[in-house]
Amino acid sequence: MNKAINIGILGLGNVGGGAYDILNGNKDLIRKRIGVDYQISRILEINPEAIRKHHVPESIVTSDASAILDDDSCQIVIEALGGIEPSTEFMLRALKNKKSVVTPNKAAVAANYSRLFGTAKEYDQELRIEACVCGGIPVLTAIQESLAANHFTEIMGIVNGTTNYILCRMADAGLSYEEALKEAQKKGFAEQDPTADVEGIDCANKLSILMALAFDRYIPPEEIPRMGLSNVSRHDLALAKGHDAALKLIAHAKITENGELTYSVKPEEVPRTNQLYNVENEMNAIYIKGDAIGETMFYGPGAGPLPTGSAIAGDVIAIMRNKKLGGRI
Amino acid sequence: MNKAINIGILGLGNVGGGAYDILNGNKDLIRKRIGVDYQISRILEINPEAIRKHHVPESIVTSDASAILDDDSCQIVIEALGGIEPSTEFMLRALKNKKSVVTPNKAAVAANYSRLFGTAKEYDQELRIEACVCGGIPVLTAIQESLAANHFTEIMGIVNGTTNYILCRMADAGLSYEEALKEAQKKGFAEQDPTADVEGIDCANKLSILMALAFDRYIPPEEIPRMGLSNVSRHDLALAKGHDAALKLIAHAKITENGELTYSVKPEEVPRTNQLYNVENEMNAIYIKGDAIGETMFYGPGAGPLPTGSAIAGDVIAIMRNKKLGGRI
Repeated sequence: MNKAINIGILGLGNVGGGAYDILNGNKDLIRKRIGVDYQISRILEINPEAIRKHHVPESIVTSDASAILDDDSCQIVIEALGGIEPSTEFMLRALKNKKSVVTPNKAAVAANYSRLFGTAKEYDQELRIEACVCGGIPVLTAIQESLAANHFTEIMGIVNGTTNYILCRMADAGLSYEEALKEAQKKGFAEQDPTADVEGIDCANKLSILMALAFDRYIPPEEIPRMGLSNVSRHDLALAKGHDAALKLIAHAKITENGELTYSVKPEEVPRTNQLYNVENEMNAIYIKGDAIGETMFYGPGAGPLPTGSAIAGDVIAIMRNKKLGGRI
Repeated sequence: MNKAINIGILGLGNVGGGAYDILNGNKDLIRKRIGVDYQISRILEINPEAIRKHHVPESIVTSDASAILDDDSCQIVIEALGGIEPSTEFMLRALKNKKSVVTPNKAAVAANYSRLFGTAKEYDQELRIEACVCGGIPVLTAIQESLAANHFTEIMGIVNGTTNYILCRMADAGLSYEEALKEAQKKGFAEQDPTADVEGIDCANKLSILMALAFDRYIPPEEIPRMGLSNVSRHDLALAKGHDAALKLIAHAKITENGELTYSVKPEEVPRTNQLYNVENEMNAIYIKGDAIGETMFYGPGAGPLPTGSAIAGDVIAIMRNKKLGGRI
């Protein structure tokens, strides 16, 4: 077997910790499946509790990002800090230093899509972002690879678990918006400041990325018309039920008959015949139409350390496989 | 751009024709997406109607398989003849002649799994089979790539559109098995000899492939216990309905608590809470559990020239990308 590939992780929070647990815990399985050896060589983290929780050997922990970004022996960087900066600068620096990058950071990718992918191309490195949209569901890889022979015509998805949970609880248990939000926060499905979720900002970031990949059109997230949940009442949910439909917060992009791309994030009534109707609570699902495939739907957990970690690990695996294939290791 | 990659197609039936139409019709899109040029250089077909239907230039049609299998200028072969032989021999010969192979031929792959993949490995060629299971739904690629960091624990799927159509029509329209079968045949969802579908043989082939990829265990299809539809009565369907469930022909494999792999193809009651409950008519869906992802489900058309062609084209695209990445073109 080859010399082990070194992987650095920036940030051992929920998602970075999940990726670490999977890449570390399932190492034998992964090595066997792809025939490549690897190790987590360094982790940027300053929170001692996170380090203890994941049983990380102290020798690989650093509080200095340069120890990963400028380390020539590190070939893959997982950026899991969150936030737009310094994450974007760190990813750019890693790419320029000839490292491939994997990130679940949809806000940074949606804000700086062209710069990040342009730099990856310029420096001949992979930038993989499967974990940015719908956590563990491999929808971006499907768009870019398995379904890449399709002219895509429509994407319609429940891409935010927090808001889907709130809407389900309002519809099924008759809670008010405020009650449902409070419950979601208690269960850990919503942040203490839920703005990015309930105002549809998170959905807009994801839709921006989906459109860039499927339609080759980058629309900055702030240009996507969006309507969040704050105006949704129990009356709206009852109305939907009366139409044999469910009210869902939908990220929607569509090529119209005259070839225009339309897009929005807003609550939509989803009829019972649509596969998205049955997507309950914190689950995500995304519906894709293309000229060859017709319609297809992907369903699964849209968040959580292990599902998101699974997507990150899948991207790391793809990079290692491709390095092997390209004779780069 | 590189010199064009030559692709040969064995058989311009429904599926081979669909692959031809997509690779030909969406050529500009595909070339742009992957930055690789290609052409369909030769097609084995003796039916003049098929050739006319797909507007194939006569100069690339041959009635001699050797003109593709032994042609050094052809780098990728799509085997779409169907049946176990001579398909298997043709695929082995192509691999030995240093061609990558793409096939939707589940019967041949399930029957000769180890020989085919062993030969691909020995001759350092790709053998890609996404179209073998669930037509256009990219489930095999997900298992092998995006979800490859998971220990899989369960696979449960509606993987045959014909039988799902028959069961739905029996349940929803109150038809008898014979009436529903006749209707499916009229609509082109069932063959004149429906044995392979209704007896679960097709499902067993697909489950054999799924288990080999997900659990690294090859079980020959004839060793998979199976029960088809011929004994399903309207009474069974009514019973399921009474349990708030739907009766579906399920290909099922599961790791038990003590680590054993169990597997079967048989009608099962699927509760309403399961995403497979709502899979109607000729659609397919497959539910996968893994230790990292939790649960995920893929839904889409399981058959048909264009969906299956989409999967074949996706595999061809992956091979061309990998060739480019590996500096082989």
